[in-house]
Amino acid sequence: MKWWGWGEDGSEQPSLPAQGAAMLHDELGLGDRYLPPVPIEQVRLPDPVLPEGVLARLAGIVGEEYVRQDRLARVRHTAGRSYPDLVRLRSGDASAAPDAIVCPGAEAEVADVLTACDSAGVAVVPFGGGTSVVGGVEPLRGGFPALITLDLRRMIRMIDGDRTSLTATFEPGVLGPRAETLLASRGLTLGHFPQSYEFATIGGYVATRSAGQASTGYGRIDELVLGLRCVAPAGVVETKALPASAAGPSLRELLVGSEGTLGVITEATLSVRPLPEERRYEGWSFRSFHEGVEAFRAMEQAEASPDVARLSDEEETRLSMAMASSGSTAERVGKTYLRVRGHEGGCLAIIGFEGDSKEVSRRRSRARGMLRAGGAIQLGERPGRAWLRGRFAGPYLRDALLDRGVFVETLETATTWSHFEELYRAVGGALRESLSGRGTPPLVMCHVSHLYPSGASLYFTFLARQEEGAELEQWQAAKAAASDAIVTHHGTITHHHAIGQDHVPWMAAEVGELGVELLRAAKERLDPRGIMNPGKLLPPA
Amino acid sequence: MKWWGWGEDGSEQPSLPAQGAAMLHDELGLGDRYLPPVPIEQVRLPDPVLPEGVLARLAGIVGEEYVRQDRLARVRHTAGRSYPDLVRLRSGDASAAPDAIVCPGAEAEVADVLTACDSAGVAVVPFGGGTSVVGGVEPLRGGFPALITLDLRRMIRMIDGDRTSLTATFEPGVLGPRAETLLASRGLTLGHFPQSYEFATIGGYVATRSAGQASTGYGRIDELVLGLRCVAPAGVVETKALPASAAGPSLRELLVGSEGTLGVITEATLSVRPLPEERRYEGWSFRSFHEGVEAFRAMEQAEASPDVARLSDEEETRLSMAMASSGSTAERVGKTYLRVRGHEGGCLAIIGFEGDSKEVSRRRSRARGMLRAGGAIQLGERPGRAWLRGRFAGPYLRDALLDRGVFVETLETATTWSHFEELYRAVGGALRESLSGRGTPPLVMCHVSHLYPSGASLYFTFLARQEEGAELEQWQAAKAAASDAIVTHHGTITHHHAIGQDHVPWMAAEVGELGVELLRAAKERLDPRGIMNPGKLLPPA
Repeated sequence: MKWWGWGEDGSEQPSLPAQGAAMLHDELGLGDRYLPPVPIEQVRLPDPVLPEGVLARLAGIVGEEYVRQDRLARVRHTAGRSYPDLVRLRSGDASAAPDAIVCPGAEAEVADVLTACDSAGVAVVPFGGGTSVVGGVEPLRGGFPALITLDLRRMIRMIDGDRTSLTATFEPGVLGPRAETLLASRGLTLGHFPQSYEFATIGGYVATRSAGQASTGYGRIDELVLGLRCVAPAGVVETKALPASAAGPSLRELLVGSEGTLGVITEATLSVRPLPEERRYEGWSFRSFHEGVEAFRAMEQAEASPDVARLSDEEETRLSMAMASSGSTAERVGKTYLRVRGHEGGCLAIIGFEGDSKEVSRRRSRARGMLRAGGAIQLGERPGRAWLRGRFAGPYLRDALLDRGVFVETLETATTWSHFEELYRAVGGALRESLSGRGTPPLVMCHVSHLYPSGASLYFTFLARQEEGAELEQWQAAKAAASDAIVTHHGTITHHHAIGQDHVPWMAAEVGELGVELLRAAKERLDPRGIMNPGKLLPPA
Repeated sequence: MKWWGWGEDGSEQPSLPAQGAAMLHDELGLGDRYLPPVPIEQVRLPDPVLPEGVLARLAGIVGEEYVRQDRLARVRHTAGRSYPDLVRLRSGDASAAPDAIVCPGAEAEVADVLTACDSAGVAVVPFGGGTSVVGGVEPLRGGFPALITLDLRRMIRMIDGDRTSLTATFEPGVLGPRAETLLASRGLTLGHFPQSYEFATIGGYVATRSAGQASTGYGRIDELVLGLRCVAPAGVVETKALPASAAGPSLRELLVGSEGTLGVITEATLSVRPLPEERRYEGWSFRSFHEGVEAFRAMEQAEASPDVARLSDEEETRLSMAMASSGSTAERVGKTYLRVRGHEGGCLAIIGFEGDSKEVSRRRSRARGMLRAGGAIQLGERPGRAWLRGRFAGPYLRDALLDRGVFVETLETATTWSHFEELYRAVGGALRESLSGRGTPPLVMCHVSHLYPSGASLYFTFLARQEEGAELEQWQAAKAAASDAIVTHHGTITHHHAIGQDHVPWMAAEVGELGVELLRAAKERLDPRGIMNPGKLLPPA
């Protein structure tokens, strides 16, 4: 991946569509700044401080070629892909860089590396795809003088793919697309498509309790993990790959979402499905977000939901229309149609079905009936196909916006249906208030993309003019305002981005002081010295 | 409940059907023993040893009338409803009785009771319906001189029932039928029907990670819990009632299944559903268990499962037919029909659908197609209705068998489809070998009753002639043989009965030594002195 942004190294930067760019320019009051990342040679990087003896010991475990200390490797492992990460990297700040990047080839090597680091007092940051947007892979030293990043890119085997039980066992470094390719050769799919899919790993999915765009249908990763192995400084924890058990508390659920703070997930057995025979995606329009949310609730509670169900609010619909605008006749005709039906200024929904053809057809017909009953009108398959094409585009677009001095950030939460409207208003209000108060009034958009019988996720995207010279303070203020609103108004601090570093201040509000103590107790048992991913997940004691 | 068995105090003992009784008599080689429980006056009960000061303090918290030390109350709280429990009780052994039974009326009282017991060094056994079949409510003192049982029977409120989010919040002492009545008044149902339903509580469901007969459709209790409150000696842990979260490890899943060893669950918010418009139950026949298992797997993996799906093996089918036999003409005609179709000696399946009428009809038609394709023939709704009528009868019948000197026990496990046959053979073989080796060859039956895309549960029932004077040794040997087979052949030591006392020796095989350490770490943080339900769940340190 590019060291300063999203996409493969050397790949072309996607540009903003002209009409959308002009609109943003006007509405955010942008200047004509062009702010590319500094060249890699100008990145400020401290000298590595790992003692020679430790370095030699690590090289002895994984092989000399798999311990890297070169500039590019160190810069690449300095940050994840959050907004503050990119702000720092683009400005040339890699002052937090790890002292070395160590790439183990097997579980036994992971164990030996942890033992070596534990005895030498070296902090360890497990690293999959490095796509965290919450500071999950930041090299925070937590009081240790040295730090390595443990990159799992060599552990990319599918250990087992079982068509009888519909399960597959992976090593942690398998990237999303590789997992799908390996599974597809056996007629299987995991169906897990977070926006980071192209660069995220199986281990990362599990360690961060991830959800994908099709999780309404395929299930969140925590619903798909049957068993796993986790190597900690204190030893290996293995939870059996079983469909269900009543053998006490679920240790699997203690390791899923542990974000590298308890140990390194070295194996995960996941539920998989037959490759879908058919995929049908289509667009619908609601007159209002409120109307759409009610229709989605009715559909979900009747067990009639599609596999992908997304509903943009009025502002997200307006902006994404502008970004996708071609100015064609067909588009003008479409807009007229929506106006005539009272849907001008309405909300776009994307509905997708995957599976056996007959079932797709049956489920689709049922869901369509419920959408119509809920006030929606159909827009055909074109918006569905467009969404599928662009489903991983967000992070690329962000780089283009950063070039122009746009503060662009996303955050997400979930709550019960009863608290949905309250939370929606509170978070949007907090963001607008915080950023307007700083003289950079934002555009705030929201969509629903994961449905549950008891509630749904809310995913906010907001844009504002960057405060020159105070980019991080601006971000911090907006993030704090939104997070305070979330925990006050019955939301979870994160529905699928994890805690990382950025959400730590709200962890006690999320699980309570004694809840935090319980997590600490687990950490002390598995990682007594505290070398594993310091500063993440848990508030300082 | 009767102090010595199942059913309401004073209710009539159900008798064994004559034909079934005769068959058991012959096949198990029973004598003519009749072994009723001893009268309550003859039960051996030690004097309570709770210091006066503690007693007064407890009475001050909950009220004098809610601290009981009378014979009946103490005997009733001496045991759950496992086979060894009943053997001991019926013989008049209540030597383990608690020193007092304390019934708090609210969460604050629970907290105060725990504080009092913690400071006085008194062990506490949380008690819901007392229906544990694995020794979960045994008054084990764990080195403490005194012990109270904390009976939650007064905490029976539905705190909230939310039709918008389809959630309901209960206090822990609400019995299964009361929960359904409270929910039904709002048009809702929990749909959780373990065999112990009539006497089990919401708190017990959650504390033991229970599954019900309709859990294939409605979901296990761990899938239904959104949030809970748990009072521990160290304070209160609350997990928010949310549809989903990625805020680190799931503490909810650490408390669900904690079996009173971490604290007392004082509130649980559960997903509920609209009351079903329609219920359709019917019987089907497969030529063999193997054929039926394959058909069930295909149905489940195609997402075509009914809400209740049960498949008896050949032996269970034969015995339940004999037990239900009326000798009528209709029955003889039915048997001829099965023989002609090659299903004589086959396997009975019960399939049940609940919900919206249109959906029941649609789902039923799809499942029926798959059952037929899998080789089944339909037996109509009569067997379905008969099963529904008798679904909670098992434990009553057990009392009648104990009267006649029958060793009758159940145990259950789950595994992936790939290991199903291996586990089925191994457990059945272990039971037959163990009991035949003692001169009491058993009848061993099995059914599948919970389906998952990756596997299924196996529920074994076995009967043998009791070894007079060595009833507990006989049980211990059979239990150990079966449990060893389970953990060796890829099963979980329990799919829905929990660990309690009886499964503790297999806990390390289930979760590993380090897994046990993790559970201990949680216990030490919430219950530093170790007063909560000693001897359960965790192996001795």
